[in-house]
Amino acid sequence: MGRKTQGELLKHVLLERLMHYYYFLGERPGEDSPETVSSGQIAKFLNMDDTLVRKDLAALGVRGHPRIGFKTHEVLAAIRNVLGFEKTNKAIVVGAGRLGGALAAYSGFSKCSLFIVAAFDSDPQKQGSVLAGTVVQPMENLEAVIQRHNVRLAILTVPADPAQEIADRLVRAGIRAIWNFAPKALVVPSGVVVRHEHIVAGLAELAYHLKNIAEQET
Amino acid sequence: MGRKTQGELLKHVLLERLMHYYYFLGERPGEDSPETVSSGQIAKFLNMDDTLVRKDLAALGVRGHPRIGFKTHEVLAAIRNVLGFEKTNKAIVVGAGRLGGALAAYSGFSKCSLFIVAAFDSDPQKQGSVLAGTVVQPMENLEAVIQRHNVRLAILTVPADPAQEIADRLVRAGIRAIWNFAPKALVVPSGVVVRHEHIVAGLAELAYHLKNIAEQET
Repeated sequence: MGRKTQGELLKHVLLERLMHYYYFLGERPGEDSPETVSSGQIAKFLNMDDTLVRKDLAALGVRGHPRIGFKTHEVLAAIRNVLGFEKTNKAIVVGAGRLGGALAAYSGFSKCSLFIVAAFDSDPQKQGSVLAGTVVQPMENLEAVIQRHNVRLAILTVPADPAQEIADRLVRAGIRAIWNFAPKALVVPSGVVVRHEHIVAGLAELAYHLKNIAEQET
Repeated sequence: MGRKTQGELLKHVLLERLMHYYYFLGERPGEDSPETVSSGQIAKFLNMDDTLVRKDLAALGVRGHPRIGFKTHEVLAAIRNVLGFEKTNKAIVVGAGRLGGALAAYSGFSKCSLFIVAAFDSDPQKQGSVLAGTVVQPMENLEAVIQRHNVRLAILTVPADPAQEIADRLVRAGIRAIWNFAPKALVVPSGVVVRHEHIVAGLAELAYHLKNIAEQET
């Protein structure tokens, strides 16, 4: 997301691909033999290069079987193991606005062993409303909840302005991974990882394509 | 996003970095000389490698000036030119749920010359509500609105199930770029680009980090 050196970026790209494989294998619709899968099937569905899929599966330590390809449950287990899905990650949502609400309502998290245990907002009007099955709490409760539940992961969906100050509080209270949807780069100590979801970055690729189409048409 | 070959992925990563530079340079807080910027300042703020920033700026065709670094307005103009921000991209939002609402309310789009001209939802209860300053319309109006406004870009925030069918309608009506937030890989003809925002993919990096921390602690 632009906040990485080249080396780290490749690693994060590999981890993302594992997540794509995980979702594809977990919800393949209308397949005849969901017990097995070929690298070609994965590549075709995800619009990827077959060689890259095979390289990734080899890196996972999953072996193909002659004629039948890969056993789906072996691939899923290997990904779960690498990404640590065998253990539950408890998370809090900070910022109960529209985006926080959309993320909290996302049912796909449970497949990744992510469970939202609390939500917070500084706006008294949002406090007391229900988000992800929990009542939105005032920011004063942040530290106590993190420590009581031993939470390590925070989903940050606040505006740019308070984001750094809140990140500092999260880290002091014991948070070790911040999923940052605030439009602001965060500074955190080493040992804490920030994933900055700069959603508008995805627009670059589309805008570039539309510009090239428009130039071809004129 | 896993839906690319290795070659395309690098290009899309470069385009994303340009978007990061664009936002950083457009809203540098509390800087003394916002007229000029060094590659080191950009690298530090975005937590990137200085060499990579310089390589990207060189690829943009922007030249540094001895002692003063890069002129901010030259870098911004070069990025605007590459990403086509000199012309407005009209967009529609399909799916007026929480995520659609959060994206429609995002004020940062105007900086990228993106303007949302209409929103659609199949749910009669959402039709008539206001999203991004426009009234949510029934799906029947989709083709007419795309053609009347000559819209090329669609933001798709519907559930997985109807996503492909809606994408087919969008493409037939003239859409050439789909920003896909539906949890479903889409098949589109060549000449149409899909950016699949698989938001949960970002979790992979964080889960991996938390797993490694937990292993160190035990």
